[in-house]
Amino acid sequence: MTVSIDNQPDSIIHRVDGDRLWRRLMAMAEIGPTENGGNNRQALSDEDAAGRALLVEWATTAGCTHELDEVGNLFVRRDGTDSDGAVIQIGSHLDTQPTGGQFDGVYGVLGGFEVMERLNDLGVETVAPIELVIWANEEGSRFPTSMMGSGVWAGKLALASARELRDVNGRTVGEELDRLGWVGTRPAKPNSIKAAFELHIEQGPILENEQLEIGVVTGVQGLRWFSIELEGFPAHAGPTPMEGRRDPARVIAAIVSEVYELVDQLTPWGRATFAQFRSEPVSPNTIPQTLTCTLDLRHPDGETLQRMEQQMRAIVADECERHGVIAKITKENDSPPVTFDDGCIARVQAATSALGYSHKQMVSGAGHDACYVALHAPTSMIFIPCDDGLSHNEAENITKEQATQGANVLLGAVLQAAETTAFP
Amino acid sequence: MTVSIDNQPDSIIHRVDGDRLWRRLMAMAEIGPTENGGNNRQALSDEDAAGRALLVEWATTAGCTHELDEVGNLFVRRDGTDSDGAVIQIGSHLDTQPTGGQFDGVYGVLGGFEVMERLNDLGVETVAPIELVIWANEEGSRFPTSMMGSGVWAGKLALASARELRDVNGRTVGEELDRLGWVGTRPAKPNSIKAAFELHIEQGPILENEQLEIGVVTGVQGLRWFSIELEGFPAHAGPTPMEGRRDPARVIAAIVSEVYELVDQLTPWGRATFAQFRSEPVSPNTIPQTLTCTLDLRHPDGETLQRMEQQMRAIVADECERHGVIAKITKENDSPPVTFDDGCIARVQAATSALGYSHKQMVSGAGHDACYVALHAPTSMIFIPCDDGLSHNEAENITKEQATQGANVLLGAVLQAAETTAFP
Repeated sequence: MTVSIDNQPDSIIHRVDGDRLWRRLMAMAEIGPTENGGNNRQALSDEDAAGRALLVEWATTAGCTHELDEVGNLFVRRDGTDSDGAVIQIGSHLDTQPTGGQFDGVYGVLGGFEVMERLNDLGVETVAPIELVIWANEEGSRFPTSMMGSGVWAGKLALASARELRDVNGRTVGEELDRLGWVGTRPAKPNSIKAAFELHIEQGPILENEQLEIGVVTGVQGLRWFSIELEGFPAHAGPTPMEGRRDPARVIAAIVSEVYELVDQLTPWGRATFAQFRSEPVSPNTIPQTLTCTLDLRHPDGETLQRMEQQMRAIVADECERHGVIAKITKENDSPPVTFDDGCIARVQAATSALGYSHKQMVSGAGHDACYVALHAPTSMIFIPCDDGLSHNEAENITKEQATQGANVLLGAVLQAAETTAFP
Repeated sequence: MTVSIDNQPDSIIHRVDGDRLWRRLMAMAEIGPTENGGNNRQALSDEDAAGRALLVEWATTAGCTHELDEVGNLFVRRDGTDSDGAVIQIGSHLDTQPTGGQFDGVYGVLGGFEVMERLNDLGVETVAPIELVIWANEEGSRFPTSMMGSGVWAGKLALASARELRDVNGRTVGEELDRLGWVGTRPAKPNSIKAAFELHIEQGPILENEQLEIGVVTGVQGLRWFSIELEGFPAHAGPTPMEGRRDPARVIAAIVSEVYELVDQLTPWGRATFAQFRSEPVSPNTIPQTLTCTLDLRHPDGETLQRMEQQMRAIVADECERHGVIAKITKENDSPPVTFDDGCIARVQAATSALGYSHKQMVSGAGHDACYVALHAPTSMIFIPCDDGLSHNEAENITKEQATQGANVLLGAVLQAAETTAFP
C-alpha cells in the first residue's frame, strides 16, 4: 500500500515502535500510582514534577533539547533543517485528576515522544523542527482553571492571574512553580507553528460503541464552568416549621433536577455535571446556611450553550426567589466551541486511511489544550477508543494495539506536515 | 394572689432576681463569642471547659458543691434537709452549635442556678436537695451523637461508645475529656430523683406567633438521624453522555425533593432536614464518585415517624436503582417521642397560672436531655418564646423579661416539688 499526500513522495507507510511506547506509558504510570490502578499526579505536585523529570531524562537520551516557559509549559525539541522556521507542535499534558487514569494526556505526550524517537530510529531529518509540548495544569482540578498553561500561552489568561490560582490548602500556582523549579524564561506566548496535532484517548464511549479504531476530530464542544453558592437561613432542624424555611438544600435539589431535565432534551451532545458539593455548618440538626457546588455545562454549538447558561440562571433565580435563598453564580471558565483546521484534519484523515484504520469524524466532548493552540495555529486532534469510554477514573484503560494505532496516525500526519529532506 | 398546690402552704409567689440572671447570661456569652453575636462553645472544647469553670466559680461562691460523673456530666448541689433523699433535678447544657446562640441550653442552666441563688437570698431550706445538672455534649454537632451525656446517664448509650465518638479532626470524646479534666468518678447512671424540670427557649416560632409567655411542655417529638452515602461512578464530565451516567448528584436531588414533598404533607409537626453535604472527588469536571449528607427526620407520633423512615428508604432505593447508584444509609440516632409526667406538668401549669402568665400546652420540636431523664424520673419542661423562633443561629435572642418569667415558673415548680421546712 502506498500513500501520497501533500505532494510528499513517501511511498512507505511508517509505523511507531508500539512496544517501546507501551513500556514508556507503564513506566510513567509508576509515578503517583493510586490504590485502584490509576494515577494521582495533580498539577504542580511532587508527582507531577517527577513525571516531567522522567520524560526529560528520556528526551535528553534521545538527543532532544528542552526548555520551560514562564508558566511552566515544557517544550522538548527535535530540530529540523529549517532550524529557525515554523515548528510542528505535538503533545498534551502529564498532570492528572486526583483519581485519574494512566492515559488521559499522558498518551498524547508519550505518543508524541514516540514519534520523535521513531524518527531517530529511521534516521529521518525533517525540514520543520518538531516541538513536543507538555502543558502545565491541564486538568484544573487542583488549581481551578483547566488548560491553564495553554491558556496563558494563547493569551487567554494573564500570567499573573495564573500564578495566583490557589488550591484548597491555600498554595498558589506561583509558589508551587517556584518551589518545584519547573518554570523558565521562555515567553509564554505562541511561537511560529506550521501545524499542531494532539493525540488523545476519546474519554467517551462513541468509538468503542461503534467499534472504530480512530476518531478524526474536527472540533471541540464549548464548556462553561460555574460555581454556585446558595445562602439560606440556618435554624434548628426540629422546631422550625417546614413552610417558613430558607433552605439551600431544598433549592439545590430543585436546581439540579431542573437543569438535568433541560440538558436531557439536548441529546446527544448537551452535558451538565454538578460536583464539589459542600454545606455549612457541619451539623446534622441545623438547616444549612450555605451550600456550594460547581456546574459544568457543555455543547458543541455556541448559541445552544449560551441558551443553556441563560436557562440555568433563570432556574436558579426562580427557585431562590421561591424559597428566600440568595444565589451567587460565578462563571469560572468559558471555553467556546472550536472548529479545527481543514488542512490538519485532512492530514489526519489521510494518514488514517492510508493505514487502513476504521474511523469517523467526530467532535470532542472534552476540552483540550488544542482548543487554545487552535487560536494561533492550524490544529487538529486524533482520538483512540478507551475501555467503556472511561476517563477521569482510575479504571481508564486502552490496549497496546490501540495506543500504537493512534501514534501511527500521528507519525503519518507529522511526516506530511514537517516534510523530510530524505528517507534513508 | 395566693397559690396552694401539692398541699404546700406557700401563700407567697416567689420570683427570681431577673437582673442577676441576665448578668450571668451575658457573662457566659463572653466565652467563645462568634463574629455575629452568637457563641461557639462546642462540646469538650476549651471554650466549653471555660464556660463550666465560670459556672463552678459562681456555684462555689454560692455555697454549692459540685461533682463530675464518668462521662463529664457536671452536678451542682444545693443540699436539702433530707440529704440522702431523692433530689429535684434542674438543668440543661452549656455546649453550643458551631455558630450557636447565647441561650440554647445556657438559659436552662443559668435559670436553674438563679433558682438556687434565689433560695439562698430567701433563706429557704428545702427538704429535697436540688441538683443542677450540666449535661455533656447535648448538641452532638462536634461529636455526632446529641444528648450524649444524658444518654449515657440514662443507659441508652454505653460509656465506652461515647468515649470513642470522634470529631472531624479525629479526636475522641475520651481524649478530650481526659485532656480537659472535666470527667469524674461519679457513676454515670440515674440517681434517685423526685422530680426533674428543664427550662429552655422554645427554638421555634409558636409561642411568639401566638403571643404567649410560657409553653407548658407535655412531650417531645421523636427524631431519627441518618447519614446517607451515595456511590456512583466517576467519569469525565464532557464526553460521558447523560443517559448512561451513574451520578449521585442526580440521585440526591431527587431524594431531597421527594422527601420534602412527603414531609410537607405532615403539617404542622413533620420535619425533614438535609445537611452536611460533601462530594468527592474535589473536581468540577468529574461526575462525583461519592456524595454524602445527613438527614434529620422528626414527628411527635412514633408510628408516623416509623412510616417516614420507611418511605424515605423506599425513595432512596428507588432513585438509586433507577440510576445505578449504591446507597448506604446509617441510622445515627433514634430518639422516640416522649410523653412527660402528669405531676410535673401539673406543677409547671400551676406555677404558670399562679404567676398569671399567658401560656399553652405544647410538644417540643427539638430533642432535649429531658427526654432521657424522663425514662427514669418524673420530668417536664418549661419553654419561653425566642425572637423569630430562631435557634442554632447566632441571632438567637430573648428579652430579660422573658428570661425572668421562665425562671419564675421554674422556681415555683421547684418549690412545690422540693417542699420547704419553712419560709423565713
